[in-house]
Amino acid sequence: MRRAVSSGSFDPVTNGHVDLFERAANQFDELIIVVSVNNKKSPLFSLEERVALLKQATAHIPNIVVEPFTGLLVEYAKTNGASAIIRGLRSSTDYDYEENIAAMNKTIVPEVDTLFFMTKPEYSYVSSSIVKEAASYGSDVSSLVPEPVAQALKKAYTVNG
Amino acid sequence: MRRAVSSGSFDPVTNGHVDLFERAANQFDELIIVVSVNNKKSPLFSLEERVALLKQATAHIPNIVVEPFTGLLVEYAKTNGASAIIRGLRSSTDYDYEENIAAMNKTIVPEVDTLFFMTKPEYSYVSSSIVKEAASYGSDVSSLVPEPVAQALKKAYTVNG
Amino acid sequence: MRRAVSSGSFDPVTNGHVDLFERAANQFDELIIVVSVNNKKSPLFSLEERVALLKQATAHIPNIVVEPFTGLLVEYAKTNGASAIIRGLRSSTDYDYEENIAAMNKTIVPEVDTLFFMTKPEYSYVSSSIVKEAASYGSDVSSLVPEPVAQALKKAYTVNG
Amino acid sequence: MRRAVSSGSFDPVTNGHVDLFERAANQFDELIIVVSVNNKKSPLFSLEERVALLKQATAHIPNIVVEPFTGLLVEYAKTNGASAIIRGLRSSTDYDYEENIAAMNKTIVPEVDTLFFMTKPEYSYVSSSIVKEAASYGSDVSSLVPEPVAQALKKAYTVNG
Amino acid sequence: MRRAVSSGSFDPVTNGHVDLFERAANQFDELIIVVSVNNKKSPLFSLEERVALLKQATAHIPNIVVEPFTGLLVEYAKTNGASAIIRGLRSSTDYDYEENIAAMNKTIVPEVDTLFFMTKPEYSYVSSSIVKEAASYGSDVSSLVPEPVAQALKKAYTVNG
Amino acid sequence: MRRAVSSGSFDPVTNGHVDLFERAANQFDELIIVVSVNNKKSPLFSLEERVALLKQATAHIPNIVVEPFTGLLVEYAKTNGASAIIRGLRSSTDYDYEENIAAMNKTIVPEVDTLFFMTKPEYSYVSSSIVKEAASYGSDVSSLVPEPVAQALKKAYTVNG
Repeated sequence: MRRAVSSGSFDPVTNGHVDLFERAANQFDELIIVVSVNNKKSPLFSLEERVALLKQATAHIPNIVVEPFTGLLVEYAKTNGASAIIRGLRSSTDYDYEENIAAMNKTIVPEVDTLFFMTKPEYSYVSSSIVKEAASYGSDVSSLVPEPVAQALKKAYTVNG
Repeated sequence: MRRAVSSGSFDPVTNGHVDLFERAANQFDELIIVVSVNNKKSPLFSLEERVALLKQATAHIPNIVVEPFTGLLVEYAKTNGASAIIRGLRSSTDYDYEENIAAMNKTIVPEVDTLFFMTKPEYSYVSSSIVKEAASYGSDVSSLVPEPVAQALKKAYTVNG
Repeated sequence: MRRAVSSGSFDPVTNGHVDLFERAANQFDELIIVVSVNNKKSPLFSLEERVALLKQATAHIPNIVVEPFTGLLVEYAKTNGASAIIRGLRSSTDYDYEENIAAMNKTIVPEVDTLFFMTKPEYSYVSSSIVKEAASYGSDVSSLVPEPVAQALKKAYTVNG
Repeated sequence: MRRAVSSGSFDPVTNGHVDLFERAANQFDELIIVVSVNNKKSPLFSLEERVALLKQATAHIPNIVVEPFTGLLVEYAKTNGASAIIRGLRSSTDYDYEENIAAMNKTIVPEVDTLFFMTKPEYSYVSSSIVKEAASYGSDVSSLVPEPVAQALKKAYTVNG
Repeated sequence: MRRAVSSGSFDPVTNGHVDLFERAANQFDELIIVVSVNNKKSPLFSLEERVALLKQATAHIPNIVVEPFTGLLVEYAKTNGASAIIRGLRSSTDYDYEENIAAMNKTIVPEVDTLFFMTKPEYSYVSSSIVKEAASYGSDVSSLVPEPVAQALKKAYTVNG
Repeated sequence: MRRAVSSGSFDPVTNGHVDLFERAANQFDELIIVVSVNNKKSPLFSLEERVALLKQATAHIPNIVVEPFTGLLVEYAKTNGASAIIRGLRSSTDYDYEENIAAMNKTIVPEVDTLFFMTKPEYSYVSSSIVKEAASYGSDVSSLVPEPVAQALKKAYTVNG
C-alpha cells in the first residue's frame, strides 16, 4: 500500500488545495492530510473548524484521511508508513523555500521523499491569506474556495467586521 | 500497478539522473525511462550508446525499464498506462521552464500528471553539458557520473580531442 | 491621443497574445502591433501569414493596427507618436529578461516607457513554440490559439509532417 | 479621461516612488495616489505626515492627486473611474508577489487592470525600510529621498535616537 | 594588509557559516566576524553564547577575529580598515535580498565592497532557523552544525522543551 | 601576493565590465583578465581586437593583466597562482547559472574559489549583446561602453550595415 502525507494550516482550505489533493490522491493508495496547530500565527478559524472544513472539501475523494497534527511532518510520515510528503509549487519563490525544507527532511529521514505538483495555473495566485484579505473587504471569493468555506468566511467577517 | 515515465537525452547520464531514478522507482511499481532521439542538438553519444549507458547505470534498480523514444511524452505515458511523468528540479530557473511544460501536458492529456523531485543539493549543479565541458578539458569527472560513463567520456575525448 | 506599440514574431499568435492585446487596447486610444521579420529563427509561418493571422485574431478589437516591421522598436514608437511599449510577463525568468530590454530602451529613447501586463494565469504557460511542438505531434491545441491559427497549424503539420 | 491609481504606505516616499509616479502620470490623464493607513506595521511617520510628504514630493507633477485611504484598492479604482492600478517592479521576488495580487484583483474586479513599470536600475535597491535603517544609523540618505523627506528623517532619528 | 568583515546573528552558527568563513579567510589576511545583537528577534542563545560558540567553531582558522557588534556594518568596515564585506548566497531569493543591501552599502560607503561566495551545495539548505526547528523536535542535527553547537542545542531544547 | 582571474569573450567590453574590474582589482594585488577565443559564437570583433579594446579600457588600472586564452579557467587559475575567479552577478537568472559553474569548478579544483560582485544597478542591464543590437540600429551607446569601443562599434556597423 502506497501512502503519502500532506500538511498545512488550511486557514482556510482553498480550491488550490483541493485540486492538489485530488491529484495526489490519484497517485497513491492513501493520502493523509494533517492540519497543523500553527501556534505561531493566530488563525481565523480554530483547529476544529479547519479540520471540519477540510473534511467537507475533500469528502468526494475516497482515499483521503484528515487529522489534526503537531510535530515534525517527516517523522510522522515515517511512523505512519508513508513514503512521500506531498507539496504544491506555485512560483519560483515557493521553489526556493520548499527546496530547503525538502533537503532538510531528507537529511533527517532519508527513507521519506518529497514529491511536488505544480499548482494549476488558474489556482497559482490563490492562497489562504489572499482569500481572507479579499473576503475581509466583502469581496466575493466563492470561485476560489469550496462552498462551505465561502459561507464560513462570510460569517466570520460579518461577525468580526 | 502504479507506473511512471521519465525522459531525457542523457548525453550522458549523470549521478544526478541516477539518484532521481532511484528515488522515483521507490514511489512507483515501475518506472519507464525513455531516451529521446534528440535530433535538434548533435549528441556526443549515439542513441544506442546513451541507452546502453543508462541501462548499466540503473541495473541495480529492479523496477526500471529503459527504452529509446521519439514522440510526445505525455501521449506515451497515457498509452503505456503511466499515471505520472517524473522530473527533477535543480533551480528556480528549472522551475519556470518545467512549469510551462507540465501545464501544457496537463492540457493535452489531463489524466497524466507531472511529479517533481528536488535534486539532492550535492547534485544540483551537475548536468550532462557541464560534465561534458569539464571532461573535454581532461578534468576528472568520475565523482559526477557512473563509472561506465566516466570511461566512455575519457574515450570520447581522447579520440575526438 | 494616447498610443502604444507592441511587437513580436507571432509565429503563430496565441490566445495569450490576444488577451494581452485586448487588455492593452483598453488602456490606450490606439495600439499598434508590429510583426517582426525575425530573420534569426526560421519561422513556421511567413511574415505575410503571421500578419494575416494576427489581423484575423484581433479583428474584434477596433483600435488595433497590425503592421510588418523591421528595426528598433523604441525608435519606431517615438517616430509614430507612441508613449508606451506594451509587454506581457509570464514568469520571473521573463522578468529578468524584460527588465534589461526595458532599461536599455529607456536609455536610448527616454520619452518612451515600457508598460507590463501580467499574463493571465490560464495563459501563463502558452507560448508560440510550445504550441507548435504540441501541434507537430498531432495534439489538439484549439483551446490555446484562435480558430484560424488552429486550422493553419493543422494544415502546416499535415503538409510538413 | 484615462485615470489610474497607485497605493502604498510611503513610510516615507522615496525617489524611486517619485520616479514611478512621474512616469505613470505621463501615461494617464490623472493619477490618484492613495496612502494606506497600514495598521499592521507601526509606521515611523503618521498618516498625515506621509500624505504631506508625498504631496510635497509630487508637487511638480500637475495631474497627480494624493489621498489617505483604507479599503480594497481595486474596488476603489472601479468606484473612482480608474481603468488601471499602477505598480513598480524592482526584482523577480517582487514579480512573484505582485503576480498574485494582480491576478486576485482581476478576479474580483475584471474591468480594472494592473500595469507595471520596471523601476529604474538606479532606484532598484531603494525601499522605504532600507532608507529608514540607514537613516537610523545617521547615514546620509539625501540622494535616495526627496529633500523634505531627508529633513523629516533626520528630525525623526534625532528625536527618537 | 587585506581585511574583510562578515556579520550575522549566528543563532546558532552552522556548518554552512563555518565553510564560508574558511573560504573567506583564505582570500584575506584577516577576517573579522561580528555577531549582531539582533534585538528584533528574540534569539535562542544569548549574545555571549553566540560569540562563544562561533569562537569555538572557528578556532581552527588562525586569521579570524570574532566580536559582538551593534551598528551599521559598512561603517564598521570602513572604520576598521576592511575593504570588503563577505556574504554567502544560497538561492536566487537570497540574491534578490542581498543585491539591495549591497547596493545601499555601496551608496553609503563607496570604498567598501561586498563580495559573495556561493554556499556549497551540501550546505545550501542549512540555516540557523531550520536547524533550530529540527532540533526542537528532537531530530539529530549533528551533521549540520559544529559539535559544540549540537550539544548546546540538545541542552537548550531539553531544558525548554 | 594575492591574485585573481576573470574571463569572458568581451565582444565588446562594456562599462559594466570595467566597473567590475576596477572593484576586483581593488581587492587583490593582481587581476588577470583572460579573453576567451569563444569559437562557439562568431564574434563581431576578432580576438586581437577584443584584447586590444580591453587593454585600452583598463589602462587606468595598474594591477591588471589582459591575455588571450583557451582552456578551462579554473585550471588556468591554479597554474597561475590565483586563489580566486571573479564574476559579476546582474540578476537572479545569472545567479542560477553561475551557481552551477562555481560548484563545478570547486569540485574540479578545490583550492580555487569563485568570488562574486553584484553589478552596480546602473550597469545591471548592460551586456555585450544588448549593446551590439542597439549599435547595429544606429543608436548611441557611448554611455554604456568605453570611448574606444563606441568608436569601434560605429565603424563595425557602418562597414557591415
